[in-house]
Amino acid sequence: MGKKGNLVVGQSGGPTAVINNSLVGVIHEAMERAEIGEIYGMVHGIAGVLNEELVDLRRESAQTLERLRYTPASALGTVRYKVKKADYDRLLDVLMAYDVRYFFYIGGNDSMDTAHKMREAATAKGYELYCVGVPKTVDNDLAYTDHCPGFGSAARFVATAVRDTGYDTESMAANTPIKLVEIMGRNAGWLTAAASLAKAEPNDPPQLLYVPECGVSLQQVIADVRYWYEKIGYCVIAASEGMRNEKGEDIGAGLGQGELDAFGHTRKGGVVETLEQVIKAEFGFSARIDKPNYLQRSCASLASSVDREEAYLVGRAAVREAVQGTSDRMIALERQPGPEYAITYGTAPLSEVANAEHTLPREYINADGNGVTDAFIAYARPLIGEPLQPYARLAQHPVPKRIAK
Amino acid sequence: MGKKGNLVVGQSGGPTAVINNSLVGVIHEAMERAEIGEIYGMVHGIAGVLNEELVDLRRESAQTLERLRYTPASALGTVRYKVKKADYDRLLDVLMAYDVRYFFYIGGNDSMDTAHKMREAATAKGYELYCVGVPKTVDNDLAYTDHCPGFGSAARFVATAVRDTGYDTESMAANTPIKLVEIMGRNAGWLTAAASLAKAEPNDPPQLLYVPECGVSLQQVIADVRYWYEKIGYCVIAASEGMRNEKGEDIGAGLGQGELDAFGHTRKGGVVETLEQVIKAEFGFSARIDKPNYLQRSCASLASSVDREEAYLVGRAAVREAVQGTSDRMIALERQPGPEYAITYGTAPLSEVANAEHTLPREYINADGNGVTDAFIAYARPLIGEPLQPYARLAQHPVPKRIAK
Repeated sequence: MGKKGNLVVGQSGGPTAVINNSLVGVIHEAMERAEIGEIYGMVHGIAGVLNEELVDLRRESAQTLERLRYTPASALGTVRYKVKKADYDRLLDVLMAYDVRYFFYIGGNDSMDTAHKMREAATAKGYELYCVGVPKTVDNDLAYTDHCPGFGSAARFVATAVRDTGYDTESMAANTPIKLVEIMGRNAGWLTAAASLAKAEPNDPPQLLYVPECGVSLQQVIADVRYWYEKIGYCVIAASEGMRNEKGEDIGAGLGQGELDAFGHTRKGGVVETLEQVIKAEFGFSARIDKPNYLQRSCASLASSVDREEAYLVGRAAVREAVQGTSDRMIALERQPGPEYAITYGTAPLSEVANAEHTLPREYINADGNGVTDAFIAYARPLIGEPLQPYARLAQHPVPKRIAK
Repeated sequence: MGKKGNLVVGQSGGPTAVINNSLVGVIHEAMERAEIGEIYGMVHGIAGVLNEELVDLRRESAQTLERLRYTPASALGTVRYKVKKADYDRLLDVLMAYDVRYFFYIGGNDSMDTAHKMREAATAKGYELYCVGVPKTVDNDLAYTDHCPGFGSAARFVATAVRDTGYDTESMAANTPIKLVEIMGRNAGWLTAAASLAKAEPNDPPQLLYVPECGVSLQQVIADVRYWYEKIGYCVIAASEGMRNEKGEDIGAGLGQGELDAFGHTRKGGVVETLEQVIKAEFGFSARIDKPNYLQRSCASLASSVDREEAYLVGRAAVREAVQGTSDRMIALERQPGPEYAITYGTAPLSEVANAEHTLPREYINADGNGVTDAFIAYARPLIGEPLQPYARLAQHPVPKRIAK
């Protein structure tokens, strides 16, 4: 059993629509545990420990905690800071000064690395510290877990958004038949692949999607777009911000290099801007662009109920594990076999999670590298929660012509 | 009373999340009217009449019509086409060949102009034609109506999205404290103003918003951003795509869009990119950008229930008016006085609607030109439907420091 002591919890890296559920899960479980004394929150992640900016989470009201379950982003504030080797002494001094024995860090790879090194620093000084990582990332790129809390909600947003803007493009086909939607994911295509989850029929938008794991030539993109444009009169493309060409080079990296703006800065072009130029050069008309950017990870109204609950339960599981003596491990979601979707909560070593990146496996991407397979749909569909509202199209029974044109 | 005859209905211009409700409203009301024979739909708006591409809407299933009430974009297909003087003879020939006596066009100013000229062309030939316009635009810029179906849903999306991405920025303040969200609206700032509708407290995001009706200098923008950044550590800005400087010049025009659409309107854009450069030059760090673009008008999941119902009822009202002999008029929403929000459906002359543009009145914009007034909130709040989910922030009670830093 874990030693009696205080607890500190922090949120790190990019927020998600449901990351506060993990925080509330930690708080709720900690409140029920005799081993836990004070419940401290780090203000802006590990920076809150470094700067001794801690808050007393026991004093938060039940209503606040309940509402936080529907509030996006990181309520404690978050940070992107690569902890330096020299920082760990200071961090440990602070933890010891506050009698902290339980350290929970909600985040992705870098956060797991921090939690692991925090544990190592404590062990080196003979200080008993239970460090447990709580997985969180819309990128879904953590290894040793079936999926990552945060992903399901972002996936539901992306699926919904691409379907909606896709219907918009379909109805505008007479004027503006090509739409490009840029989706988050520099190295991992999970979220871009999720754009396919609202498709009811094979011809539904998005007709094409491109992920970083599977480079395609711009010639193929043009051929792909032409195929759909000729077949159904329009084409919607979900493109990962990390999309690559057949040589594995970033498609977005090339645009505007050497171009200086009014302030003398190089303009950073993106993937969809590059694709737009290619399409315009080839087809002679502009493509339309959507860049929902941070809405993908923050749109709480379109959060997945499954994801919200799992994000809460990983927080609870982390405390449950730690008071039982678990340390240096991350909570891992384990999918149970069988026809019904079911998850249990195990653990994985922090050091291994920290050093791995789980990208989209080849069997989830179709042969042409421009769509997903049924295996991906089977994997990802349960994560986005309730079925989406079914949409309709008019049957459009033609009226026989009465005038010879 | 209107003459017995067939009906044709079309959707025009940019789609909305609820425009199909107006179509279904027309169909439902027409089915209940003995004066109406066939119910034809124009495929891709007026182009469907020109090309004699009509569909038989009586053959659509009840389930399809019901689902269309939740399906975004224009189910008949839409078009941006400026009807030429010479086209009206052909249009009238087609309408006469199909015994059409009822002509309904769902759209904005240009569509009202088309419907008006259609009526004039018919009158000139002595052909009795009942032309009624059905208002639709997310821009909310039609005159002679309290507001426009489509606006409430786009407004709800914008309010929700800016709040969500704003919370994201608040939690990331330690790293990326400035966010720019580009909002639709070339000449009218209604939708940008709607970004304020989710604010619960004065300090909530968006801290700043800029509309085309009220030009501000880039120096003021910098001062505004500095004020908020120094006060609360971050700043979220909703910027209209038609934002102007103090001389009334397009702020985004410098970054090379300048393309004209089918109506000769300049395609605007580049506003947030311009602001990002200005902010980077001044503050030394990049701002983050969201460009939700077409999601603003298509996100059916965040549609306003009030807007959905009103969009349906304007469709029904159009048919009801026409069979009573009304022609050359648009359905207008009239807000009733009193504490409760209530709308009745009147009419306004098509020719006057076609030639007017209803921009945000000065009394809805605050004195500094960077926010809205309570009068705007009172006007717009009922249009977005049910109250938004309340969000929470942690009280963040500080823990007394134990180590002198």
